[in-house]
Amino acid sequence: MNRKEALETVKPHLTEHRYTHTLGVRDAALTLAEKLGVNQDKAEMAAIFHDYAKFRSKDEMRGIIKGQKMDEDFIHYGDELLHAPAGAYLVKKEIGITDEEILSAIFWHTTGRPEMSDMEKVIFLADYIEPNRKFPGVEQAREAAETDIDEAVRTALSNTVTFLLQKNQPVFPGTLEAYNDITFKKKQNEGGD
Amino acid sequence: MNRKEALETVKPHLTEHRYTHTLGVRDAALTLAEKLGVNQDKAEMAAIFHDYAKFRSKDEMRGIIKGQKMDEDFIHYGDELLHAPAGAYLVKKEIGITDEEILSAIFWHTTGRPEMSDMEKVIFLADYIEPNRKFPGVEQAREAAETDIDEAVRTALSNTVTFLLQKNQPVFPGTLEAYNDITFKKKQNEGGD
Repeated sequence: MNRKEALETVKPHLTEHRYTHTLGVRDAALTLAEKLGVNQDKAEMAAIFHDYAKFRSKDEMRGIIKGQKMDEDFIHYGDELLHAPAGAYLVKKEIGITDEEILSAIFWHTTGRPEMSDMEKVIFLADYIEPNRKFPGVEQAREAAETDIDEAVRTALSNTVTFLLQKNQPVFPGTLEAYNDITFKKKQNEGGD
Repeated sequence: MNRKEALETVKPHLTEHRYTHTLGVRDAALTLAEKLGVNQDKAEMAAIFHDYAKFRSKDEMRGIIKGQKMDEDFIHYGDELLHAPAGAYLVKKEIGITDEEILSAIFWHTTGRPEMSDMEKVIFLADYIEPNRKFPGVEQAREAAETDIDEAVRTALSNTVTFLLQKNQPVFPGTLEAYNDITFKKKQNEGGD
């Protein structure tokens, strides 16, 4: 499937606003993929389909997560988490994308996880900093992404946790684990403990 | 051991600043214990000894945590976590306090944990809001403690995580788990999901 076909395929599944966001994620993902040296064609495909399941019913998405024996934390920690793992499943089943790098980047794009692959970082971060995004902290993440993608991912994870704490919402444990993972690795690289 | 003996026993182990803090925790703990209906004598004893190990060497405290097969997360997530579990051990061994309610409150007073007992909440919160404490968010926790101790504990946990994120420091997973635990229980009580 080429870029044009992919965009035509995803468009009917999204609102206009979300399609514009998807184009922004595509552009950001291409830039980040080049910086990290990951396959740009795969990054583009993951970006185009990352929100494929965004407007499915919560019942359908919960059914997929349970039926596919995925971690039920995706159900318990807020409905906005459902579309990422459900989307990875539906993109494989309905679109026929089988590349695990692409599917895994879609799967983890909302929460992050420890030991993220470079492709997962590209999509997670592109989703956070794409040019249409406007929220506190996004500029800090954009600036970090210019020189240090791990620092940008950590900023995005940290801002996400802080935002949820401020709203008194539960926080998916894997998101904090992802933050801790990058934090420990940075300390090691800096020669700290 | 009565109150006077306990204070005389702990004093040589603390700096003047830390002894003043301990007296503040004692006062706050008595108030909170009355509100929650937990044993005030035990709460007072836990408060007096909560920082007993604060000035032990890090090597001694790490040795206790490893030797006693405690969770090594207490070692990995920042040196300021060491004195709580090490203190619980030393208070038992050196002072002879064997009451599990008291020891557990000392053990968890820095990190918190999911499913905290009322005694653990009293010491955790008293340590955070005692009158000598001055840091962003403490007033919000003090106010919450007037009417809703769980909300005050959640505020203290949330502020602690936010503070560490702002400093790019790792966050003990149990502290977020404690926050999530209270958050889910509050949602249930409010009739949410």
